[in-house]
Amino acid sequence: MHVPIPIRGVLALPFKLAGVRISRMNPNLCTLCETKFRSVKKAQQVTVPATVLFADVRGYTSLSEEANASDVTTMLGEFYDHCSAAVWERDGIVNKLIGDAIFAIFNFPIRRSDHVQQAVLSGIELQRRCRAMKTAMAGGADVPVGVGVGVHTGDVTIGEIGTTIKDFTAIGEVVNLAARLQGASLPGEVVVTEGVYRQVARDFPGAERRECTLKGIARPVTAYVLRG
Amino acid sequence: MHVPIPIRGVLALPFKLAGVRISRMNPNLCTLCETKFRSVKKAQQVTVPATVLFADVRGYTSLSEEANASDVTTMLGEFYDHCSAAVWERDGIVNKLIGDAIFAIFNFPIRRSDHVQQAVLSGIELQRRCRAMKTAMAGGADVPVGVGVGVHTGDVTIGEIGTTIKDFTAIGEVVNLAARLQGASLPGEVVVTEGVYRQVARDFPGAERRECTLKGIARPVTAYVLRG
Repeated sequence: MHVPIPIRGVLALPFKLAGVRISRMNPNLCTLCETKFRSVKKAQQVTVPATVLFADVRGYTSLSEEANASDVTTMLGEFYDHCSAAVWERDGIVNKLIGDAIFAIFNFPIRRSDHVQQAVLSGIELQRRCRAMKTAMAGGADVPVGVGVGVHTGDVTIGEIGTTIKDFTAIGEVVNLAARLQGASLPGEVVVTEGVYRQVARDFPGAERRECTLKGIARPVTAYVLRG
Repeated sequence: MHVPIPIRGVLALPFKLAGVRISRMNPNLCTLCETKFRSVKKAQQVTVPATVLFADVRGYTSLSEEANASDVTTMLGEFYDHCSAAVWERDGIVNKLIGDAIFAIFNFPIRRSDHVQQAVLSGIELQRRCRAMKTAMAGGADVPVGVGVGVHTGDVTIGEIGTTIKDFTAIGEVVNLAARLQGASLPGEVVVTEGVYRQVARDFPGAERRECTLKGIARPVTAYVLRG
């Protein structure tokens, strides 16, 4: 839906009345564009090729036990800001902020034929931005905050799920595998599937190969570890 | 902020212009009320006593591998609807829908002195509603869908986190522990902490006691298993 809609200023007022606002998932989009498939496809969900990225703060639960609530809040805010900057500059959307984790989608609604590369570069940039993150412990010492990233690509189902409560999100095996891969990543790593690595191997030659056994996934998964 | 604001019909139009809408987290609230602390407290976050509830579809990752995407979507939609009905009827808000999981908060923004009981009854009702849930497997057979629930109570930090991207949520040790407890629950169970059980013991006498070792939480946790 490449129709320019004013999302800021006086011209945006009639659109606001109709419920069209700036997308929280990417400030360069409006909410109409975010869910464009609804009017275009008359379907509640569409299946499209996309690349998905999960990032989280490693050891967040134990960190929360040792740090003050306000320091944890500040650290999470910084993490969200680093992540959203890294995702938005590569035309992705931050679909969800989930406590210490973020879930980003590339190639929807902004189409990019190179969405796999964009997602990987976003992950690398996200790690670069987060490298200096620290949080204060109750004892007074600052400790570095490690971030893990998982990336996978393939067909995902995107749309609004639910009737009385609606959630705009992406689901499917590709999403689940990316989440599990991220769970297996170590601080500083961007862990990607073989399908992703094949498309970025030229830029990341000789990446470490890792066989992963992931909860709920029957077959072992071959992953590659990228670093900035 | 007990100011009646029209959230439906013609009278709601000026409020819509100002950005006030029906809360997605509870249709009996407006978005202004949802974040009432911002204007009242001039603080970005507040620390308040609350009860938090996590529910998820057990074995969702492997289920997604075996079922069709459209059947998974239908099942999730049904799950979201059951959960939101059970949470809303007890004055809670569904703060997040996270794939196969939901995160609900009780005692904010609607205050209830009996929020612990309300959250537990909501969990029991949620399990009752989900009991008949089934999903079709690729092979053609319908299999039952099991749901796990975790509940904990205590002080949580509620507010908007982040600057360039904002997320309205609750964080803190109470939230993390509830999430971990839910992860340790079996299908059909509502697993609660000792602090929660003490307040509902009269209604659930002789509940099974369970010692849990949870990821990221230093001390073992004493939990109680409730069933409807």
